[in-house]
Amino acid sequence: MQELQNRILAEGKNLGGGILKVDGLINHQVDPELMDHCGAELAAFFANSGATRILTAEISGIAPALMTAKHMKLPVVYARKTRPVTMPHTVYLTVAPSHTKGNMVELIVSPEYLQSNEKVLIIDDFLASGATIQALVRLAQAAGAEVIGVGTLIEKTFEGGRESLAYLNVPVHALVHISSLDDGKIEFSD
Amino acid sequence: MQELQNRILAEGKNLGGGILKVDGLINHQVDPELMDHCGAELAAFFANSGATRILTAEISGIAPALMTAKHMKLPVVYARKTRPVTMPHTVYLTVAPSHTKGNMVELIVSPEYLQSNEKVLIIDDFLASGATIQALVRLAQAAGAEVIGVGTLIEKTFEGGRESLAYLNVPVHALVHISSLDDGKIEFSD
Repeated sequence: MQELQNRILAEGKNLGGGILKVDGLINHQVDPELMDHCGAELAAFFANSGATRILTAEISGIAPALMTAKHMKLPVVYARKTRPVTMPHTVYLTVAPSHTKGNMVELIVSPEYLQSNEKVLIIDDFLASGATIQALVRLAQAAGAEVIGVGTLIEKTFEGGRESLAYLNVPVHALVHISSLDDGKIEFSD
Repeated sequence: MQELQNRILAEGKNLGGGILKVDGLINHQVDPELMDHCGAELAAFFANSGATRILTAEISGIAPALMTAKHMKLPVVYARKTRPVTMPHTVYLTVAPSHTKGNMVELIVSPEYLQSNEKVLIIDDFLASGATIQALVRLAQAAGAEVIGVGTLIEKTFEGGRESLAYLNVPVHALVHISSLDDGKIEFSD
């Protein structure tokens, strides 16, 4: 998706250590028009997937998942990292490594909003190692639901996330692919 | 806003102790079409406010703020509760009481995305005691920016939030007003 790639080139920052800062577009400040276009692109790719529900993880997944859900006219569920008082006592819970904190975080979904008859499309901002997305897959599987695809804004192809999801045998689609963040550069591939 | 009121009546749950559960619409599962309509309503109300930027707090503020931002064609910034590695070393930080955890949480905004020339519209899901919104006001003021309005999906009029914001002397608009959660009922006022 050329629009997103252009914006990352213009406004993204390679902080070194494999970290791409896109806080001005996605992770702290959000450009709603860009996010709407990204949602439309992901929705178009998965238009015939049979998805009945979109699943993401708070926090940075919410914006892309919501915009994709709007274009697909599907409900979106965001896995919570803390169990709010409004949740039932029995929930689906798994853990995933935190990018920012270096420890494990919990991801929690209420059985009220993820059921065994669902076909789940997972949407997130980044596909890097795939660990967060694998955690979302486990939550869907715990509910007996079927994961039918994975869509993200940005894939870092050098972190192996796509390979880690091969066992799912479902379409994995990213709007832009970053093949290298070496030497301070941001290199894209098709 | 009759659509939101109808949905809260049909799908919301009064959990007692002043807690309204809207996890099926807003706080865990989101109906993107409903949220889009809510964003359009808030955008219409603040159309002539002169806002240059929308400010909200992660997590539940993101969806209504993003949809409002889309209709107003403005950037949206969500205050983070933990400082990610991508943020600069010097940030604006304040604390606010947590509804779900009973302790204080930090709210953090990067100076990159909130500057002194901005006219800030604060959007959140709930106006209850007003404590979270007051924290967002402090962040805007720390940046030297001007708060020009506050919009929320739901106001619990019995928790005093509106009165706590009177010192701002700006429009405070909620799409629905809940006047009582006593006796297991959900009562609305105009």
